[in-house]
Amino acid sequence: MIPYYNCTRTDASGITVEVFQTMESVPDHRHTFQEFVLITKGSCIHQYKDISMPLIPGDVFLVPPHQEHAYVIETPVCMYNCQFYPEQMPGWWDTQFGSLLSNLAEPETGNPISPADLNRQHIIHLSPPEAERLQSMMDTMLLEQTEQGFGFQQVKQDYLNLILIAISRARQSQFALLPGGENPRREIVAAAQQFIEEHLAEHIDFSAYARLQNVSPGHFRAIFKSATGLPPVEYINRLRIIRAIEYLKDESLPMSDVSAAVGIYDANYFSRLFRKIIGYSPREFRNQMQQAP
Amino acid sequence: MIPYYNCTRTDASGITVEVFQTMESVPDHRHTFQEFVLITKGSCIHQYKDISMPLIPGDVFLVPPHQEHAYVIETPVCMYNCQFYPEQMPGWWDTQFGSLLSNLAEPETGNPISPADLNRQHIIHLSPPEAERLQSMMDTMLLEQTEQGFGFQQVKQDYLNLILIAISRARQSQFALLPGGENPRREIVAAAQQFIEEHLAEHIDFSAYARLQNVSPGHFRAIFKSATGLPPVEYINRLRIIRAIEYLKDESLPMSDVSAAVGIYDANYFSRLFRKIIGYSPREFRNQMQQAP
Repeated sequence: MIPYYNCTRTDASGITVEVFQTMESVPDHRHTFQEFVLITKGSCIHQYKDISMPLIPGDVFLVPPHQEHAYVIETPVCMYNCQFYPEQMPGWWDTQFGSLLSNLAEPETGNPISPADLNRQHIIHLSPPEAERLQSMMDTMLLEQTEQGFGFQQVKQDYLNLILIAISRARQSQFALLPGGENPRREIVAAAQQFIEEHLAEHIDFSAYARLQNVSPGHFRAIFKSATGLPPVEYINRLRIIRAIEYLKDESLPMSDVSAAVGIYDANYFSRLFRKIIGYSPREFRNQMQQAP
Repeated sequence: MIPYYNCTRTDASGITVEVFQTMESVPDHRHTFQEFVLITKGSCIHQYKDISMPLIPGDVFLVPPHQEHAYVIETPVCMYNCQFYPEQMPGWWDTQFGSLLSNLAEPETGNPISPADLNRQHIIHLSPPEAERLQSMMDTMLLEQTEQGFGFQQVKQDYLNLILIAISRARQSQFALLPGGENPRREIVAAAQQFIEEHLAEHIDFSAYARLQNVSPGHFRAIFKSATGLPPVEYINRLRIIRAIEYLKDESLPMSDVSAAVGIYDANYFSRLFRKIIGYSPREFRNQMQQAP
């Protein structure tokens, strides 16, 4: 039986914000509250809906009540977590946010081919400024939670509302539906994902690739983004960084080999890209892994 | 009969934000909506409750429905204005915010001796970072109002809530009640206000002044702030700047005379203080007055 975890602490708002910065995995569990999680630094693996999904900063997702999930944490990671009880909110709240929550939690029947496909666990990836805005709102909620000044319950509620609307908007623009049928583009995207997996260590010219599939580069980019949640170039960068994290775990592998193994032959560029996406340089990241107990 | 002004435009949120940047006075009027106003740059005079109150950036105040008021605008000013209909908000809103609104609008029976006494019109003065935060929330509301994206009504509502709570908190800390009786400190403060008015052009040592009144400098500062909304030094600076604005209207008066007339004998310091408080240098401010039709 998968254990139920309790809300770590509660106040009159029915909303709890917490920051987890840990190197300890969290085994399979579930809860009675709604939860959303934002990764702000580092990386970990989320096991959910029978899929292991590597997460990176900017990833945000909802876990509805009673759903089993677990975190495999083998590398440094920082997660912002918000737990809330919709049934503790005023009556109007469910009318306003009930369907939004179920939309956010409902995964499209995606194409579970690639660990970079955000659709597999219905992850929404925020741009760095969006993620920073969300983090700053959650920092304010944390402060309100600690200080409990006049009206803090309402302030936490208002920020929760603003965050859920911001996440919904990001989701809408990320997985924007395209006019026309679903199936042909699914096949094109699935083939492209496989091609990327197989040619990760090489340079890929997506415009040339699109034309080979008889679609315009612009249309290819649009259908790819609408199905995976990321434009092709961001998708391949995400995949490269996720792979690099796996290689970094092998301490005997020199950095230049890690970089080349994911198709980046300029080690400085690799280091900059890694830091930009993960928030640590590859070297810091590896050092922190080694220091972990 | 004082005319009723309509809400300039409306959307489903029942909340309208507008920015006024004008050199035209607004005659006596009233409205059926609630309104709050934040001054962000420059200065103008608010006529309300039979009192003419010079406003400066950071000043924020509520005007409840059916109250007559007017703006005398003879100098450059920028005002952020939010109009809203509490009766259009969900039922819980009034429960949560009704008494907060009446607290914010209810003026204390203050001491109408000085144009720098914020209590006369129940004005709340925000610190520059607080005022900036409020302005940025109102800028977001304006953007939501223009773009009308998913959930914009809720976003406007949430920011209105956050702003009203922020204003209430500022009011609480500004007019914080002191333990003990009311009357003795009223007399001390009224005497101090008169002393400041009469010695505005001189250096005032508030610690010495307090000791002459047989109160400790710390206690004097606390009762003064709790009664007027400002600590003595900020109060006198406000008064000096408000007076300086009057003198600036006389174009024949050299800047050094304006500065000296309000007790500031370093013209550079005067210029810096004026710009810090008003948002324009005294020269820019005077030039813009002259350019006005």
